[in-house]
Amino acid sequence: MTVTNRRFVLASRPTAAPREDNFRLETAPIPELGAGQVLVRHHYLSLDPYMRGRMSDQKSYAAPQPLGEVMIGGTVGEVVATRSAGFVVGDKVVGMGGWQEYAIVGGDGAGLRKVDTAHVPLQAYLGAVGMPGVTAWVGLNAICEPKEGETVVVSAASGAVGGIVGQLAKAKGCRAVGVAGGKDKCDYVVGELGFDACVDYKAAAGPEAFFAMLRGATPSGIDCYFENVGGMILDAVMLQMNAFGRIAMCGMIAGYDGQPLPLQHPALILRSRLKVQGFIVSEHPQHWPRALSELGAGVATGKLKYRESIANGLDSAPAAFIGLLQGKNFGKQLVKLI
Amino acid sequence: MTVTNRRFVLASRPTAAPREDNFRLETAPIPELGAGQVLVRHHYLSLDPYMRGRMSDQKSYAAPQPLGEVMIGGTVGEVVATRSAGFVVGDKVVGMGGWQEYAIVGGDGAGLRKVDTAHVPLQAYLGAVGMPGVTAWVGLNAICEPKEGETVVVSAASGAVGGIVGQLAKAKGCRAVGVAGGKDKCDYVVGELGFDACVDYKAAAGPEAFFAMLRGATPSGIDCYFENVGGMILDAVMLQMNAFGRIAMCGMIAGYDGQPLPLQHPALILRSRLKVQGFIVSEHPQHWPRALSELGAGVATGKLKYRESIANGLDSAPAAFIGLLQGKNFGKQLVKLI
Repeated sequence: MTVTNRRFVLASRPTAAPREDNFRLETAPIPELGAGQVLVRHHYLSLDPYMRGRMSDQKSYAAPQPLGEVMIGGTVGEVVATRSAGFVVGDKVVGMGGWQEYAIVGGDGAGLRKVDTAHVPLQAYLGAVGMPGVTAWVGLNAICEPKEGETVVVSAASGAVGGIVGQLAKAKGCRAVGVAGGKDKCDYVVGELGFDACVDYKAAAGPEAFFAMLRGATPSGIDCYFENVGGMILDAVMLQMNAFGRIAMCGMIAGYDGQPLPLQHPALILRSRLKVQGFIVSEHPQHWPRALSELGAGVATGKLKYRESIANGLDSAPAAFIGLLQGKNFGKQLVKLI
Repeated sequence: MTVTNRRFVLASRPTAAPREDNFRLETAPIPELGAGQVLVRHHYLSLDPYMRGRMSDQKSYAAPQPLGEVMIGGTVGEVVATRSAGFVVGDKVVGMGGWQEYAIVGGDGAGLRKVDTAHVPLQAYLGAVGMPGVTAWVGLNAICEPKEGETVVVSAASGAVGGIVGQLAKAKGCRAVGVAGGKDKCDYVVGELGFDACVDYKAAAGPEAFFAMLRGATPSGIDCYFENVGGMILDAVMLQMNAFGRIAMCGMIAGYDGQPLPLQHPALILRSRLKVQGFIVSEHPQHWPRALSELGAGVATGKLKYRESIANGLDSAPAAFIGLLQGKNFGKQLVKLI
């Protein structure tokens, strides 16, 4: 083959916020396929907050991304060459292809999943019908377990995960309250996604003002909290949690750059008899089939809404990723590759 | 009747550590019994850390102890007069009689439980076979759910709750590690209660030294933590928790006087996918019968060991309670009334 692949590798580990020079663009020819291998041309690359953790070599739930290797990332694309009986050219697939234009997948396409694009757009398999959607589903249904009439709060509410959390909570008969940064995002969360309320943390002068706003939006207290952010928002939510409340810890993006992020009032876990549980969606495989089925049906019927921020071309990936960590995206952050 | 009752009422709420003048000794004649009432002469009063919370009017899981009323407290004693068909003079009973020498219990002894003292000493119903023992049982078996071979750590390990936690963990085939203050307590925890190790936090120069000691005592990490203390100990334990670890939050005595007690690394809940859950033993009534049965058998057969700190006479209760909050007791703190 004469096709050339372009890819980003991790060049260095960030010491604070990631910078574009932590990534290095490389070019390499694509080798001939071996037996059982599949060549996928990526249409979209997914950018997700978890990638920040992989850039560090701090102890975490996953091994760090090795230096000099292609950055990890979810991808959707099309099979363009195959030496596996399980795939034909033209198959649409989702996988973990990384920050690159092409990926060779061995083992008869192990880790690749063929997807149906008749009713669901291909890139939705990176968002509402992919890892972010299942994250929302598992955190809400398996960790928080809200009952009808309860109040569910989610931070980063306009994001790929948070937007789904609130819509699933509404569908269960809960009061859904988002926390997001900026009037535009809050308007979207209430007006388009159908949340009952949204608290704009950027409009709060400080923690006490934010707490007052949160209290106003949750007059019956908070029964479930889906945490994507940490810091001031978590502290305020804890003060407003009802007895026997549940907190699903999905992300703590506020602390990803290594700054200390203490929890101010851990004694509230005891006083309010809370359950606070961290989870990683990949460790709950038993829930994926049902979650994907429900999420796919929601997207296909138009009941489940989402929004995408699309950066164009592989070269835009580092800047788009840095923007994601700063909350500059609006909905699911993707990089469109072709 | 001509008998006089002596009792302690809450005179004022502490602003920091409780002082003896927060309590006031009163004397009052005992009235004639009404229909259905029972007069109990208390043999022992139980002193427990939860009482500190009731002295404050801060929001908590229970209503504050009203000023001017008899201090709440568990008691064991003997029925000395009765107008209830359910009790005869001489019955040994456990109840919530409060800080006083006698209590009149109405409603045909509602809240009083007759106990068998043939095989279990009366005062054990305030400790190993009472609320502290059941607290240990519920926190360990219903919240932590340790599996054989796992490492269980408990703070305040020589106390009425902690000592039982470790012995129950050992009986389940776990490695039991205590945290206690002072060499004597640690020697007791290992030598008499049979824990595998004990970390003396008073021997640590600071948080880092304590963490190093804890790490030495838990070479395979920590799977379950039963929390009675909070602060530095909790922070260190969290750093040492294994993936999918469970923390039962039973008490945070380090913060009972109102000082801030932040949790330094809440992101570890996510990174290690921990479950952190607060609980109050009275809210788990379904476990009490089995727990009391197992604990009673353990004490009757001598398999379950415990130690008591006994203060003599009602007048000694305030000082003994203040000592308990400072860790001056060694084992279950009781006040012997006759």
